[in-house]
Amino acid sequence: MTYCCGVLVRDGLVMIADTRTNAGLDNISTFRKLHVFEEPGHHVLAIACAGNLSVSQSVISLLHEGVEDHEAGERHQLRDARTMFQAAQLVGTAIRQVHRVNGDVMEQSSVNFDVSFLLGGQIAGGPLRLFMIYNAGNFIECTPDTPFLQIGEHKYGKPVLDRAVSYEMEIADALKTSLISMDSTMRSNLGVGLPIDVLVVCPDKLHSELKYRIEPGEPYFHDLRERWSAALRAAHTSIPRPPYMKDVRSLTRESAERQREET
Amino acid sequence: MTYCCGVLVRDGLVMIADTRTNAGLDNISTFRKLHVFEEPGHHVLAIACAGNLSVSQSVISLLHEGVEDHEAGERHQLRDARTMFQAAQLVGTAIRQVHRVNGDVMEQSSVNFDVSFLLGGQIAGGPLRLFMIYNAGNFIECTPDTPFLQIGEHKYGKPVLDRAVSYEMEIADALKTSLISMDSTMRSNLGVGLPIDVLVVCPDKLHSELKYRIEPGEPYFHDLRERWSAALRAAHTSIPRPPYMKDVRSLTRESAERQREET
Repeated sequence: MTYCCGVLVRDGLVMIADTRTNAGLDNISTFRKLHVFEEPGHHVLAIACAGNLSVSQSVISLLHEGVEDHEAGERHQLRDARTMFQAAQLVGTAIRQVHRVNGDVMEQSSVNFDVSFLLGGQIAGGPLRLFMIYNAGNFIECTPDTPFLQIGEHKYGKPVLDRAVSYEMEIADALKTSLISMDSTMRSNLGVGLPIDVLVVCPDKLHSELKYRIEPGEPYFHDLRERWSAALRAAHTSIPRPPYMKDVRSLTRESAERQREET
Repeated sequence: MTYCCGVLVRDGLVMIADTRTNAGLDNISTFRKLHVFEEPGHHVLAIACAGNLSVSQSVISLLHEGVEDHEAGERHQLRDARTMFQAAQLVGTAIRQVHRVNGDVMEQSSVNFDVSFLLGGQIAGGPLRLFMIYNAGNFIECTPDTPFLQIGEHKYGKPVLDRAVSYEMEIADALKTSLISMDSTMRSNLGVGLPIDVLVVCPDKLHSELKYRIEPGEPYFHDLRERWSAALRAAHTSIPRPPYMKDVRSLTRESAERQREET
């Protein structure tokens, strides 16, 4: 599995991705899923991948080497895209090119052609933007109303984002919230795991502010996980019990009664 | 969609189920998914259903009217089960009976024969138990190591349960935690909605301690949702920002600087 998340707030873009891949539960490896294309002063782009690793790696290679444009007889590299919209289109074209070569044979072998991407960043002359690209090459763009996009194992980490992320939050808080979302996902799905790759881009800087890998045992992330667990336990405790449970409480067995007397 | 959850702790069993059904987003209705079979002093059983409503309702009807046992030439009703294991087997048999009649034709119409059940409760002479029954009629039983089972849209509400539920927790806290899990699910999936049906059974009482429907606007559940949101916001705030973001913070744009000065 995979979990990748992009958060686009007024003050910048955060993208995070885990690195665990698995071909069955007995074949687990570490692969980078967050790929940065950067030429300071000109563009800073990042692509996070989920789904079949052979497909996503081929797409990344095509974006480096150039995607065929048969009509024009040209190859287009991601670095040549003049706008983020064109960059997203190029990722879509690369997906379709891989599908033409491998899609049918993969499906004949009962392997899903299943892949999705987050593309975030900025190209000189345009704004900082974030897209999610589906396996047919079509895509949607992140907007301030819901300033995050997710791919992969997205459900476990979504409640945290739904509640906490807003377009006006500071970039450091956006990163912190993304990491809490990653933590929730890692706890519930063993297919998502450390290390975690992190990228932060601030508007109009045209370079990455932060490219960082959180390794197992990294003190801040460890501390974040501990604090979040403790805070959730405290939140649980602070909520009163259901009023319609009063009768039941007096009926529960003696051991529970004793336990209550002790606390 | 559907979300149902059963929590089996030392002090009892909690089962909750939402009531929203949908045939497409433009066809949303309210149907009871938590069905109680109760004969005080003899048995108290509850079944929660997820998946295709026509299948789950047929299964419930068969459990009331009797499932054919062709070999013995008899019909077995759920109320006649002598152990919880036999009751779970009977639910499985009922699912397979519905599949024999409808499965092929449904699949020809591209409708998945997709259904799952939670069966919880106690029959005189045996312990309080909880099972999850799959669409092939096979089933697993809940044990103290992981004292909850979920069906339907289970991922959004699982992180809360993973962290908070333990076999030794009090029954009122088990209900509270189930409701928080339901709240997380409802926030992230509009296919899960109020009213919520609740059942609580305490061991060896052989009757339901609580059968309750949480209607929209019910003050306790409203208050629980508000408090949980506030507690999560506070938990977010209390966690320090990533230390590797310090440089970024000094680089963010002026508006953010001003905002920080104000706070």
